[in-house]
Amino acid sequence: MDTMAGIKRTHYCGELRKEHGGQEVVLCGWVARRRDHGGLIFIDLRDRSGIVQVVFAPEMDQEAFRKAELARNEYVLAVRGTVKVRSEATVNPNIPTGEIEVYCREVRLLNAAKTPPFYIQDNIDVDELLRLKYRYLDLRRPEMQRNLILRHRVTKAMRDFFDRHGFVEVETPMLTKSTPEGARDYLVPSRVNPGKFYALPQSPQIFKQILMVAGLDRYFQIARCFRDEDLRADRQPEFTQLDVEMSFVERDDVLNLMEEMIAFIFKEAIGATVPLPFPRLSYDEAMARYGTDKPDTRFGMELIDISSAVQGSDFKVFQSVLDQNGQVKAINVKGYANIPRRELDGLVEYVANFGAKGLAWICYTDEGIKSPIAKFFSDDIMRRITEVTQAQPGDLLLMVADRPAVVATALGQLRLEMARRLNLIDPNKLSFLWVLDFPMFEYDEEERRWVAMHHPFTSPRDEDVEFLGSDPARIKAKAYDMVLNGTEIGGGSIRIYNRDLQEKVFAAIG
Amino acid sequence: MDTMAGIKRTHYCGELRKEHGGQEVVLCGWVARRRDHGGLIFIDLRDRSGIVQVVFAPEMDQEAFRKAELARNEYVLAVRGTVKVRSEATVNPNIPTGEIEVYCREVRLLNAAKTPPFYIQDNIDVDELLRLKYRYLDLRRPEMQRNLILRHRVTKAMRDFFDRHGFVEVETPMLTKSTPEGARDYLVPSRVNPGKFYALPQSPQIFKQILMVAGLDRYFQIARCFRDEDLRADRQPEFTQLDVEMSFVERDDVLNLMEEMIAFIFKEAIGATVPLPFPRLSYDEAMARYGTDKPDTRFGMELIDISSAVQGSDFKVFQSVLDQNGQVKAINVKGYANIPRRELDGLVEYVANFGAKGLAWICYTDEGIKSPIAKFFSDDIMRRITEVTQAQPGDLLLMVADRPAVVATALGQLRLEMARRLNLIDPNKLSFLWVLDFPMFEYDEEERRWVAMHHPFTSPRDEDVEFLGSDPARIKAKAYDMVLNGTEIGGGSIRIYNRDLQEKVFAAIG
Repeated sequence: MDTMAGIKRTHYCGELRKEHGGQEVVLCGWVARRRDHGGLIFIDLRDRSGIVQVVFAPEMDQEAFRKAELARNEYVLAVRGTVKVRSEATVNPNIPTGEIEVYCREVRLLNAAKTPPFYIQDNIDVDELLRLKYRYLDLRRPEMQRNLILRHRVTKAMRDFFDRHGFVEVETPMLTKSTPEGARDYLVPSRVNPGKFYALPQSPQIFKQILMVAGLDRYFQIARCFRDEDLRADRQPEFTQLDVEMSFVERDDVLNLMEEMIAFIFKEAIGATVPLPFPRLSYDEAMARYGTDKPDTRFGMELIDISSAVQGSDFKVFQSVLDQNGQVKAINVKGYANIPRRELDGLVEYVANFGAKGLAWICYTDEGIKSPIAKFFSDDIMRRITEVTQAQPGDLLLMVADRPAVVATALGQLRLEMARRLNLIDPNKLSFLWVLDFPMFEYDEEERRWVAMHHPFTSPRDEDVEFLGSDPARIKAKAYDMVLNGTEIGGGSIRIYNRDLQEKVFAAIG
Repeated sequence: MDTMAGIKRTHYCGELRKEHGGQEVVLCGWVARRRDHGGLIFIDLRDRSGIVQVVFAPEMDQEAFRKAELARNEYVLAVRGTVKVRSEATVNPNIPTGEIEVYCREVRLLNAAKTPPFYIQDNIDVDELLRLKYRYLDLRRPEMQRNLILRHRVTKAMRDFFDRHGFVEVETPMLTKSTPEGARDYLVPSRVNPGKFYALPQSPQIFKQILMVAGLDRYFQIARCFRDEDLRADRQPEFTQLDVEMSFVERDDVLNLMEEMIAFIFKEAIGATVPLPFPRLSYDEAMARYGTDKPDTRFGMELIDISSAVQGSDFKVFQSVLDQNGQVKAINVKGYANIPRRELDGLVEYVANFGAKGLAWICYTDEGIKSPIAKFFSDDIMRRITEVTQAQPGDLLLMVADRPAVVATALGQLRLEMARRLNLIDPNKLSFLWVLDFPMFEYDEEERRWVAMHHPFTSPRDEDVEFLGSDPARIKAKAYDMVLNGTEIGGGSIRIYNRDLQEKVFAAIG
């Protein structure tokens, strides 16, 4: 094997263009492919930046040609050569360097390689365990390198943003004390104090509050957190979160800053424009219109309350639900009146998974309304349904009647499912929104008491404080979630900083 | 207590200047001091940016005055008021905001506070345990805030620098496998696999090498590391290091880049200029001239080999050392010929701590040479000593004769000690240098074999490879340390990337 002695890389493989024509360059990289053709050897040399074609001709340099004959896939080479602009006929439009090739005058075989167990390219269909076993090969694939580089760009943009806004990044300790949080702590036994343990932090919560009490005013950290939970697709034992805290601000200051940050990151990392401000929806409105507190707003098909429209009908199922303070809601699946009967049956099963005891439907077909329940509705009721759902010929109404919580879940899920089936979701669309005014408390049926929905240190809205003793259900919290395309990607709250108020909240949850 | 409702901070306390005169401002902060004088109340309000004087007058606002009377040190206030330029007689030149004061029109008492257990100011003489117990108060002190902010600026500058140079920051895992390193691992028991443990990383070594093998080319990370070692002043269970790796480079590429980074950080973080390039000293030269591989070069007083000068003298102590391949070296303590005899005796004890069996001296006083050993030296030898040490009237020579390792340690330490005693070290000076060409191997007397001085994956210098089998002592490694003011602040090496060479190195250490 050769060494790099006396030779120095001048360019990355993927950056060579027409303008480099005639220049002598030194490249270092991995053999992506070798072809022998017409007495020449062609090697696609790959590094982080991309691929370039290197040509070996015996008449250019005998020694280099002989070495090129030894090269196999994933051999590591350093190549000295001259950039030549390709003739129009031989231009390769599929790669950015396709207008040139490098005629090699000297090559160093820096390392040999065995035949890799899978191709070093995008979109391979390889078992994940094999990819993890050969992680150093898997990470050579362009899509994996792009992921690593994108992640770097995102965290770099975050840091630039917060730095410009006067935030101080503080690294908080990792070997720390256990504090009660949602999940189990990872524990680290202390050798110096046998029987004692450190805990790895589930979040830097305590530390950032100490920093606020200490007057640091604006803190952030891209922080590693640890939760000893069972694995799920979106949960790992260790993960990284952006952690931010500000003093002397109200909720809207936080929302404005955070959405500016998102726009900045998308701009810096991928050049995309995110329109500001984000829509802001109250929790109640989100639940009413989408049946969830993390709605996917890339498409419409909102939940429509038809309770008043069907009030007083002869359809017993609806009426008894309404009599028990339940509700009847519908989604209008535009243009899908001709849904196959078998699919409709499947949907009944689908909503059953989410607790709905049934699913009613009305098809506005060209031949008129088809529905097993239409016969229970007077013309007047039918007109009201059509009006409130804005149903038109060709539309399909799907309806669930139940307690509000069941309606929300079942119909909210059904909305997502129908959008997927009808391909209504543009995967390139970014629909951000804020969900605000979460309930401060929810009633725990088991414990028969009110508990904090977020946590008991979240501040109630100023206008709701007076109901702390009398009507917990009415109180909304200064808590907020950032939602993107139906996923909660962040959240937070204004903390209580006043002892009296904190004591009232504790009293409310007993 | 009041709330922030309907009031919004407009400025930080410490940023107000003459130019703000006449403006209405809202400030939030902590009461640093309250004085009542001439029917007015003066409150020094403090936030992260500094302190400003707020004036409360009954005629401005009765309610605000009444609340100001309640305020005590460390109460948290929001203040609305008007900036007034002070009369020349009342300007306070000791604080940046001393040319103005804020006349308060409205105040909110956001929180009360007990009397703090120590003063919230710089240079307090308080037990460290008390400071740690009230960490949130300790961190309010301006010097602590400056430390946190400086640290933020330094890591931000590092990230800017590496980003601009094409490096990708990758967060490597923390719950990982144990790998043999210098220290003990912290272990984390797995709940899912009882009896199995994760290890917290002592460094991201393995991961960064995987990233290089994967072709990421340029990686960096500001990485948390964990070592289960007993506490020392410069060692903690967890610490943060800048971790960098590059592919296809030689040693000088690394040195050049790293010193550029240092200059960039000093410029960005504190506006200081670090001259480049750093001096580069071989290990052998550093040991010869300073007796250490991390010399403090803020001052001279280098070690001078006087072995040839004293060769053949009648002083048996020197001669027997020289006969056994030892050496005699001196430092010239300029202008300290009149050192008290008692101090000289103390220095003999001082070098004894570092293994020296004795310390010889020559004082070049105004009355001529004074030295207990001068009588053993011929005029010729004395002349040679004076010449090689460049001793002049008023100078003091301190000499140690022993095995080279003992001479280096004892005289190197004595050099530092004399510099401290004579106040030769400018605390504001930054003396960076590189120490290069470390020995590849050192002979382990106990194990009776050669061992790697750095680690066995460090590449030997190209020109030394041929001696791998025959003369390990002669081989220098491509390893380097960055030294600042006598402290090693970083180091690294070029790795072996060639299997043959790696096998030869393993063979050399058996």
